Amino acid sequence: MSKKAVILFSGGLDSTTCLALAKSQGFDCYALSFDYGQKHRIELEIAKRVAALMGVEQHKIVSLGLGDISGSALTDEKIAVADYTGDNNIPATYVPARNTVFLAIALGWAEVVGASDIFIGANDVDYSGYPDCRSEYLEAFEKMANLATKAGIEGNCYAIRAPLLRLTKREIIQRGISLGVDYSQTLSCYRANQVGLACGKCDSCTYRKKGFIEAGVPDPTLYF
Amino acid sequence: MSKKAVILFSGGLDSTTCLALAKSQGFDCYALSFDYGQKHRIELEIAKRVAALMGVEQHKIVSLGLGDISGSALTDEKIAVADYTGDNNIPATYVPARNTVFLAIALGWAEVVGASDIFIGANDVDYSGYPDCRSEYLEAFEKMANLATKAGIEGNCYAIRAPLLRLTKREIIQRGISLGVDYSQTLSCYRANQVGLACGKCDSCTYRKKGFIEAGVPDPTLYF
Repeated sequence: MSKKAVILFSGGLDSTTCLALAKSQGFDCYALSFDYGQKHRIELEIAKRVAALMGVEQHKIVSLGLGDISGSALTDEKIAVADYTGDNNIPATYVPARNTVFLAIALGWAEVVGASDIFIGANDVDYSGYPDCRSEYLEAFEKMANLATKAGIEGNCYAIRAPLLRLTKREIIQRGISLGVDYSQTLSCYRANQVGLACGKCDSCTYRKKGFIEAGVPDPTLYF
Repeated sequence: MSKKAVILFSGGLDSTTCLALAKSQGFDCYALSFDYGQKHRIELEIAKRVAALMGVEQHKIVSLGLGDISGSALTDEKIAVADYTGDNNIPATYVPARNTVFLAIALGWAEVVGASDIFIGANDVDYSGYPDCRSEYLEAFEKMANLATKAGIEGNCYAIRAPLLRLTKREIIQRGISLGVDYSQTLSCYRANQVGLACGKCDSCTYRKKGFIEAGVPDPTLYF
């Protein structure tokens, strides 16, 4: 019988690598994206294309009115996405409880499709100070998930898998390339324009750029 | 300084009592409802009206495409909401990971408005077999919440409060009436019709009806 996994999937560098890893481990993959009011909505078109290229079982885009309650630069038109600064503060792009909301919906879908594994491309090396990208957090979520659900209490335990957690961007890129990921198709920028070109200056672009340099791999990203 | 609380709020008997309790404890209340594809969408109109009557600080309705991934009788047009049967199985109205998703979004909003308390009308007496209405689950969520968020890791701890958890419907109703709740304005039915009349036969109606009988209070619910 096939193993199924739900993959939180934005079509960016990390989640695409995460999807490739899940596939390489023999999972049938259910990719999950969110239309949560992000200004860089082009990522949803990119995610659709990349999910299809990678041969997922299903790709769902769940709409989610996070913009209504949020105070993040990623959703609020009144707050600009800043250039990378290099300080260690939690950035304005932080969306309150975003991974918790995303993982919660992934958990619901996992229960519906009968998946026991949920993959998230969280990373706490280049993690930009997000509290919900740390192993203590992910372990606490997993514990909660197994108490939250019909399947969990019936003993079909859920596992939250974050295979990129301890990897540098260099290592993530090297891992992805060894698995055949075509990064030219992926998009990581918080300020991507309407055709999916990247700014090259936000936190996300900065970490990605540095990763390609350190991996010694030509950066296939198209910048505007 | 005022204390703020986010209240998961459907405009039903339990969540309205929960809101009344939070107010009686001196909280400024931020009521949160969800448009999650429920067939009984009239509850959102009822929720608006009840929230206004109860004098909340804000009432938000967050839209959430749970119907896309769900297999619940509450959202799927192909699955009927059944009459109450009295067995102890998890019913078809179970929405996978619903409370986890709702609490996760409540947590995000709590962080934005600066609330440290989140109220949920969960109950494990008449709880219809929902795994996410048990204290072990709620404690695990609270632990996770304090690792998930900027405010949590800065030491402003979140508390998940479920003041109805151990109360019978009779006790909930008596508590609400002592706080002045007008239950004629509330709606609990899973099959409510377009003008907000209740079916009187689903699980939710059955527990509610029984509660009024046991409390010795005339049932103000309008049935179709």
